[in-house]
Amino acid sequence: MARKLNKQDALDYHANGKPGKIEVIPTKNTKTQWDLSLAYSPGVAEPCKEIHADVENVYKYTAKGNLVAVISNGTAVLGLGDIGPEASKPVMEGKGVLFKIFADIDVFDIELNSRNVDEFVQVVKALEPTFGGINLEDIKSPECFAIEERLRQELKIPIMHDDQHGTAIISSAALLNALELVKKKIEKAKFVINGAGAAAMACVKLYVALGAKPENFIMFDKDGVLNKARTDLDAMKQVFATSSKATNLTEALKGADVFVGLSVGNVVTAEMVKLMAKHPIVFAMANPDPEIPYETAISARPDIIMATGRSDYPNQVNNVLGFPYIFRGALDVRATQINEEMKLAAVRALAELAKSPVPDIVNLAYNEKNIVFGPTYIIPKPLDPRLLSTVAPAVAKAAMDSGVATAPITDWEGYKDVLNKRLGLDNQLFRVIGTKARKDPRRVVFAEADNLKILKAAQVVNDEGIAFPILLGNEKKIRTLAADNGIDIDGIEIIDPKSDEMHDKRHYFGELFFKKRQRKGFNLYEAKKIMRERNYFGCMMVETGEADALISGLTRKYPDTIRPALQVIGMEEGVKRVAGMYIINTKRGPLFLADTTVNFNPTAEELAEITLMVAKEVRQFNLTPRIAMVSYSISVPAKRRKRSW
Amino acid sequence: MARKLNKQDALDYHANGKPGKIEVIPTKNTKTQWDLSLAYSPGVAEPCKEIHADVENVYKYTAKGNLVAVISNGTAVLGLGDIGPEASKPVMEGKGVLFKIFADIDVFDIELNSRNVDEFVQVVKALEPTFGGINLEDIKSPECFAIEERLRQELKIPIMHDDQHGTAIISSAALLNALELVKKKIEKAKFVINGAGAAAMACVKLYVALGAKPENFIMFDKDGVLNKARTDLDAMKQVFATSSKATNLTEALKGADVFVGLSVGNVVTAEMVKLMAKHPIVFAMANPDPEIPYETAISARPDIIMATGRSDYPNQVNNVLGFPYIFRGALDVRATQINEEMKLAAVRALAELAKSPVPDIVNLAYNEKNIVFGPTYIIPKPLDPRLLSTVAPAVAKAAMDSGVATAPITDWEGYKDVLNKRLGLDNQLFRVIGTKARKDPRRVVFAEADNLKILKAAQVVNDEGIAFPILLGNEKKIRTLAADNGIDIDGIEIIDPKSDEMHDKRHYFGELFFKKRQRKGFNLYEAKKIMRERNYFGCMMVETGEADALISGLTRKYPDTIRPALQVIGMEEGVKRVAGMYIINTKRGPLFLADTTVNFNPTAEELAEITLMVAKEVRQFNLTPRIAMVSYSISVPAKRRKRSW
Repeated sequence: MARKLNKQDALDYHANGKPGKIEVIPTKNTKTQWDLSLAYSPGVAEPCKEIHADVENVYKYTAKGNLVAVISNGTAVLGLGDIGPEASKPVMEGKGVLFKIFADIDVFDIELNSRNVDEFVQVVKALEPTFGGINLEDIKSPECFAIEERLRQELKIPIMHDDQHGTAIISSAALLNALELVKKKIEKAKFVINGAGAAAMACVKLYVALGAKPENFIMFDKDGVLNKARTDLDAMKQVFATSSKATNLTEALKGADVFVGLSVGNVVTAEMVKLMAKHPIVFAMANPDPEIPYETAISARPDIIMATGRSDYPNQVNNVLGFPYIFRGALDVRATQINEEMKLAAVRALAELAKSPVPDIVNLAYNEKNIVFGPTYIIPKPLDPRLLSTVAPAVAKAAMDSGVATAPITDWEGYKDVLNKRLGLDNQLFRVIGTKARKDPRRVVFAEADNLKILKAAQVVNDEGIAFPILLGNEKKIRTLAADNGIDIDGIEIIDPKSDEMHDKRHYFGELFFKKRQRKGFNLYEAKKIMRERNYFGCMMVETGEADALISGLTRKYPDTIRPALQVIGMEEGVKRVAGMYIINTKRGPLFLADTTVNFNPTAEELAEITLMVAKEVRQFNLTPRIAMVSYSISVPAKRRKRSW
Repeated sequence: MARKLNKQDALDYHANGKPGKIEVIPTKNTKTQWDLSLAYSPGVAEPCKEIHADVENVYKYTAKGNLVAVISNGTAVLGLGDIGPEASKPVMEGKGVLFKIFADIDVFDIELNSRNVDEFVQVVKALEPTFGGINLEDIKSPECFAIEERLRQELKIPIMHDDQHGTAIISSAALLNALELVKKKIEKAKFVINGAGAAAMACVKLYVALGAKPENFIMFDKDGVLNKARTDLDAMKQVFATSSKATNLTEALKGADVFVGLSVGNVVTAEMVKLMAKHPIVFAMANPDPEIPYETAISARPDIIMATGRSDYPNQVNNVLGFPYIFRGALDVRATQINEEMKLAAVRALAELAKSPVPDIVNLAYNEKNIVFGPTYIIPKPLDPRLLSTVAPAVAKAAMDSGVATAPITDWEGYKDVLNKRLGLDNQLFRVIGTKARKDPRRVVFAEADNLKILKAAQVVNDEGIAFPILLGNEKKIRTLAADNGIDIDGIEIIDPKSDEMHDKRHYFGELFFKKRQRKGFNLYEAKKIMRERNYFGCMMVETGEADALISGLTRKYPDTIRPALQVIGMEEGVKRVAGMYIINTKRGPLFLADTTVNFNPTAEELAEITLMVAKEVRQFNLTPRIAMVSYSISVPAKRRKRSW
């Protein structure tokens, strides 16, 4: 991601409130004594007996069928290496969160104090009755190969080491589509693979399964090309040794069709890319810095198709496109394993999805006008809501066709409906809004910048690139507050409407305001004086175009906040009414509530008018509003009822 | 429990909706791309690094510190025996649910395919980094002893085999209080223990730790008394062999002060109890049938103090009084084990709590006027909300005093506040209402009994003993609906207001109604005819005292439901207004909403009146209402606005 991520933000996110990122909650009623007598003694004996009679009933009466273990020993965590099981726990919890929000799969994250293959296998085998599937994660090679292979042989539940197969599956989908775009056959394509870790090996194997020829690969580890002359190669690497005479990357890339980088940043140069064949395909997946910078590669070769591991460039190879849906499909047919057929089905489903017309919700989520299959869009976007109902059924079907499904699906339309209902719409809205804002960040005045909550919000808005904040208030007070609370406001503009520096601006704003309001009882002196108030000053900034929006109202009464806006900015031409709107985000989609703030006791006609205004706003988010009209009034003492705006 | 529990209810509870009883959810925001960059890559690297630098930080940045594993291999499940790990899963999930609702502890239930002590220990040791504590459950003896002992030695997190120590701790608390009531010293008390399983042995050990003399115990297994003459005793049992000459229970009980039963039902007779010493203490804990029926024991010995494992008699020895709070205390000071001092602290805290004045909420929950320390109340009730803030701090303090706490608590008042905030009030209300209703079940008319939801509700109400349902509607239709859906309505009265049998009753009700309403435009013919309608007929049953309440309104319009009630039953003398009330149960306590149904656009005065009515109702639940007044009106077409009731 291009925007900066602050260390403290990440630590606070994990530490604040309940430490960590997950909790385990009951899904059934537990309110009454009766509920508890069903959930535990004596009622619980009944499902126990049913499972004892037929062990398959464990899927009917327990959470097993939707429960995946994310298991690691912390020996190869992200870019951090061998940091041990405890230090890997944040990653495993995070993986669990991704499983849940993308595929509604429940995850127990399991961090094992076990580095030995035999012991690791024994432990996971003992855990088998607990889980419906097992996702191995961040286990170093070469142990990861033996562990996965033995568990695949010995367990009856699906298992996958995501570090190996995730990247292989996603990059395979990208590869198929890239080759199609440049009209090359995979059987003839020449590959250079930089990196010889578990993921790289899995990639090569899967590309070969898709038709690539083993003799067309040249693979490099950190010591150079893997060839028959090397005497230091272990058995795993020997499989990938080439008979090519190339001795370095430059030589290898000469005439190559595909470069796959799973190594480190900046090891490929523009000159090297220029040596590649016509329409080169470059997957530079090192993170955070790709093997060759995106810009460098595309300027060197305008005919390139490029993918990276980053979200801020086209074609991000992101494992989250795979594991949630692969396990979803495997669980839903109770597959006994995740086999090659299922992985290939996931590859093909992902490749096909990228070629099908992109629904507006995806364009909107990424703030694009029209995402179309082509060199800058060869794999689906992670926030594409069709992934679940596309990839999971493909994987489930492949499991059935390859004979590893024990609970086949017959009603595929029904299954897709179930999948689409699993996730509400709740994840979409704020991503869409955020992405939209980020594409064209506006200047937003924070009128109450000396409030800690507001200051933090301004920092987040700034860090996320959602807007350019302008802070109003006493500069010293704001800087102290920021320093005391570790809030980085470097580079954010601060304006104190009361300061001497702002004297002329107050007068300028005051005169404008006077002209606008003189018939409504403000004299010039009052108009200038009131500009010392931040809500008036800030609104005037918006009115004059010095800012685009104003955020206020946390610390002051609502009427005191909205009055300046109505007086200074007023309504757009042709608009007859101002209304407030709240958004409540629910699992079943967002609710937009209006008008709960401005219009007091509206008539049915006024209400209809407000409702239509809101509906118009809601449609902006590509949501179809369903309308309920409710008029209300807050019961307040009579004297506060009269408001003149 | 006295009320019947239907097998299908228990199976449905587990199978309906999401199979099983738990899910794992994110506790942090996961709505935006920014959130996900904190929860997973790249932000997650920061807490990983902090934990790698100091492993104790795992408690700061992950869920470990609040996460307990409930681990079983399913070899000794409840009364079901060795049913295997899969079949034990409903119990382990259920135990997790109890941990969560009573102490806000998150639980991963782990069912191990492992019967061997060495392997079991190795697996749990490998799991150590994942969890903050380990609750072993339903593991058969003698393996359970070695497993627990070795894990206690080898793990640095608290561990407890609840089957052994739970019963020991709760019954010890009961024992201390019973002895105090009968003014006997534990050092002199003579014990007979029937049962020689893991729980029985743990009981004896803990009673001895509290002062009982080993030579004062006579213990029985299913083959008879454990004495020095027996040659078939294993090492564990030999420890408990007596030199007493008693050869059977009757001989052993002669003059005994305490009988502890952890065996099977109905093995002790009235005659045997009569042989015991003055003020005998009998804990007959076999489930569901105690070693001697409660009624038999108390008629045989009016001077007895008796406890059982059942919730429908006084003094239930229920493990849920212990494990949630013991682990809560242990986790909160990061104890490295659960040692004898902590168990004894739990015993004493439970014993003390039973002697302190019982708050009204507990009386209300059990529908008692005034629960007072005495022979029928020697241990706290499971729903006593003081348990968490009493037992957990006692255990935490004992951990500190005995040197096993690694994160000592200094602010005990603050700690109690935190504990009290962990659980909202949400668990209390419906238990209170249910218990209250159950104590004096009323006759409730279900006017829409031919609706499946209503029929199920009526069955639950009947099964739970909350009320005596009376079903209105076509009998054949109702019976078919019940049969088709496996709903047991045997013994529930069905009345069809339209049937010939009800002809006379319709006329009787019609005449009464005519007298009441004749000035309001009903003639006698209409009044009799309208009694064919179930809402009128049902209300008339309530009006004439044939029923106590009516439930209706699911399938018909609200006005059509409430109008008959207002016309037939009307308002109580002195009451000027009818209002509707909804209850919304939230984590922060229940919300009572009124009036959202009857009074259209009330004035401020009317609103105040309604609010006071609701406040009065709310006080019935021993809740202090905080009042918010909001008037509202539903915007409906004008012609529907006129209602005449």
